[in-house]
Amino acid sequence: MSATPYQQLEQEWRRLHAFRGALSLLRWDAAVMMPRGSAELRGEQVAALETEYHALLTTPKITRLLDRAKANSQGLEDWQLANLREMQRQRDHAIATPVMLISRLAKATARAENSWAQARRENNFALFAPHLDEVLMLVRDKAALLGQALNLPAYDALVDEFSPGIGTADIDGLFKALSRKLPGMIRAASEAQSGQEVLPLIGKFSSSRQRALVVEIMKAIGFSFERGRLDESEHPFTEGVAGDMRITTRFDAADPFTGLLGAMHETGHAMYDLGMPLAWRDQPVGRDRGMALEESQSLLLEMIIGRSAPFLRYLQPLLQKHYGATGPEWEFANLHLLMTRVRRSLIRVDADEMSYSLHIMQRYDIEKQLLAGKLAVRDLPEAWNAGMEQRFGSRPAGTVDGCLQDMHWAIGSFGYFPSYALGLVIAAQLWEALRTELPEVDTLIERGEFAPIFGWLRDNMHGFGAKLPIKDLIKQASGQALSANALLRYLQGKYLAETP
Amino acid sequence: MSATPYQQLEQEWRRLHAFRGALSLLRWDAAVMMPRGSAELRGEQVAALETEYHALLTTPKITRLLDRAKANSQGLEDWQLANLREMQRQRDHAIATPVMLISRLAKATARAENSWAQARRENNFALFAPHLDEVLMLVRDKAALLGQALNLPAYDALVDEFSPGIGTADIDGLFKALSRKLPGMIRAASEAQSGQEVLPLIGKFSSSRQRALVVEIMKAIGFSFERGRLDESEHPFTEGVAGDMRITTRFDAADPFTGLLGAMHETGHAMYDLGMPLAWRDQPVGRDRGMALEESQSLLLEMIIGRSAPFLRYLQPLLQKHYGATGPEWEFANLHLLMTRVRRSLIRVDADEMSYSLHIMQRYDIEKQLLAGKLAVRDLPEAWNAGMEQRFGSRPAGTVDGCLQDMHWAIGSFGYFPSYALGLVIAAQLWEALRTELPEVDTLIERGEFAPIFGWLRDNMHGFGAKLPIKDLIKQASGQALSANALLRYLQGKYLAETP
Repeated sequence: MSATPYQQLEQEWRRLHAFRGALSLLRWDAAVMMPRGSAELRGEQVAALETEYHALLTTPKITRLLDRAKANSQGLEDWQLANLREMQRQRDHAIATPVMLISRLAKATARAENSWAQARRENNFALFAPHLDEVLMLVRDKAALLGQALNLPAYDALVDEFSPGIGTADIDGLFKALSRKLPGMIRAASEAQSGQEVLPLIGKFSSSRQRALVVEIMKAIGFSFERGRLDESEHPFTEGVAGDMRITTRFDAADPFTGLLGAMHETGHAMYDLGMPLAWRDQPVGRDRGMALEESQSLLLEMIIGRSAPFLRYLQPLLQKHYGATGPEWEFANLHLLMTRVRRSLIRVDADEMSYSLHIMQRYDIEKQLLAGKLAVRDLPEAWNAGMEQRFGSRPAGTVDGCLQDMHWAIGSFGYFPSYALGLVIAAQLWEALRTELPEVDTLIERGEFAPIFGWLRDNMHGFGAKLPIKDLIKQASGQALSANALLRYLQGKYLAETP
Repeated sequence: MSATPYQQLEQEWRRLHAFRGALSLLRWDAAVMMPRGSAELRGEQVAALETEYHALLTTPKITRLLDRAKANSQGLEDWQLANLREMQRQRDHAIATPVMLISRLAKATARAENSWAQARRENNFALFAPHLDEVLMLVRDKAALLGQALNLPAYDALVDEFSPGIGTADIDGLFKALSRKLPGMIRAASEAQSGQEVLPLIGKFSSSRQRALVVEIMKAIGFSFERGRLDESEHPFTEGVAGDMRITTRFDAADPFTGLLGAMHETGHAMYDLGMPLAWRDQPVGRDRGMALEESQSLLLEMIIGRSAPFLRYLQPLLQKHYGATGPEWEFANLHLLMTRVRRSLIRVDADEMSYSLHIMQRYDIEKQLLAGKLAVRDLPEAWNAGMEQRFGSRPAGTVDGCLQDMHWAIGSFGYFPSYALGLVIAAQLWEALRTELPEVDTLIERGEFAPIFGWLRDNMHGFGAKLPIKDLIKQASGQALSANALLRYLQGKYLAETP
């Protein structure tokens, strides 16, 4: 008996999955292992495989098989139907973007990323501006083409690539609710904390000790080093496919927490990917349900669990064990003050969980204006500083701590930033539900017993892969529709419980 | 102006080259970095990319372009004509082997490699036999198809894949000359050495110290760590493409030389690959001229230079520097005795340069019989032991030190072994020519100045890539036709100079 069109499609995607894995390894190696002089060669390899991937995904054969499979879908089960829908989605996105545009974008972003790094080193935005202009023009073309194909406004089409099923209407609603409350809450929390004396953690924390601590915690969380690795890189990231997950972090010898929290963030991503339905691991339906949910998992572990009192009770003896650290600054009370400090930092990655969303709103407003042509690249630094003044009450000293702090725009990732804020909102919803259904969660965390937590996440979210639309999945897992309320309740309870 | 057929072919091979680089990284990572549990996933990735590579190489488009380019070759230069010939060769080899056979062979060899390792652990040939049988059947099919397509006898077709332009007639001629002289020379050298007292090197040599020593020597040789890496793996190997060469070795804490000589061997391969004509680096003509020449470069560095008196004079102070090693056993005289010992080891990789070729003859005889069906797999151990008795005067204690010692047959590499013996023969020819044209070579080596040696190799051999047929290249570089005479003169001079 010959294979059905649907079965043939699964076979095609098995091949695409192998390409994805190879591409992921090429990127991981470039950031972690590759000799410095090999960057150009690696760029050629990645471009060749991406072009081939795009070509395989957009052959007339795939289109024909998709049409035939949809016309004969009566016999398919739920998972297969969802898989077919995701295949169609991937193909529609790919075919909307001509390979020539992808190739030009790849080259322009490679140049822009270099010039961004140089502009940061020399605190000179002008070096970066023309390259960002070029990237922006190409991203505009891509957004227009995608929007046309998907029948979405241009910016929504970009968001849809990262987080299908989410649009500006959702984001605007969430940001409106958050911006109504957060500034006042931040002020109140800052005032409440103003009298606290916090002792700094001073010392030299070697990479090998930090690594040993992080590995112990990752193992407790459930990360498998039999099918994954932890390495160091300039910026933390997660690469790989289920079966070989590789995360990185960056250890700072003067700071015992940056490397740990970076690793917790990436472990959150990895645990999501490891929780996917194994039977579908090489198919589109067996993947994450977009970057908003990815960030919900990383921020749940880094921000909500990682800065919670029970986690710090679990962590405190581990700090003593690995750093031999003693003294009042290493006691639980001081650690807790340190990790829950509301600081109004002007740097996103240093932000506390209270003010984090404001950083994202700033970027969301600006990238929409850039894309629509309402803001010129040359005016970006001033627009950035004005926005920061309005949101945080002060301006950054230079563009390095201002509009040059993130690399997202340099690499063409317009429409990605909302994923972080959405992620935090969703993480708070999941956390609320998890605490109701697993009332002993604080005790478990304090004991370093993470299995029930990830069991719950797997049962309610991870295990569904991309089977459900994002909003249905959020509703199913958290019992609530997507809304900022859970995040606001969580922040209120944690930072302002004693405020009237 | 649109691209000519020849130009389009170059473009196609640029893409294939990127695939080769990606495949090479997947293999390197599997042996050096990959978590153990990810082997099956990696196997799928490699198989998918290899299948795609094979498909790209055998499309009707390539065939059409080759025909059109050959029909319009008047305007092409020498290098382009040679490139066209190599393209045709690669395509002819690929199209002769159906993708289904490649895929079955990939799976059978993966199984056979596992069972080979298990058979070694348990000293039980019977565990391996059925898997070798399966591999052998598929290799026979492949050899028959290749032979038909290339108009060569089956075994010659396999050799042609590794070392184009070399056939059994050449190998038989060389082996006849060597086997006439070597046994008597080995006997004489052993007798001459029988009175010498050699002191063993005893100590614990940490990986980090061995690595530091090896890195210093590799840098002196000219290996660029800006575009390459040295790592550890179970078996030493070289992977990568020019621009990102990665070699590995294996450090044995009880032995200061295994890791060094392994690294020298692989550095020889890497220096050949690094010496290729840069302008052709992503084209077939910009590659090595087959495995016999590859092995000539690795054995020249490992065996001829690495065990020479001048090299040991260069090495001796480095051993002191890195190991703090002193005492009579670390003096030049003892090191020289150690490294030039003729031992009649029954293990190929421990063999001295005098008896090395006998090991290859043993494998050559046996693999031809296996392929022709004149020797059954179940009779292999006895045939092996009989051959060793005849060649070395003794039998191995078990199959681990007998016919299970190499993994080549398990991974389907029939026809590869002659490359080693050919390599040694060619290395001796090159060495003879090099010493004539660079009379100060001993002084240079003693000072650790390797640049003139590799400059000579680049000018006379490396820089020609695959432009010339192998025999022309050997003739051009060494001034002699392929022959065993130089190797016999070299061995005579080194080991038997004082024998009448």
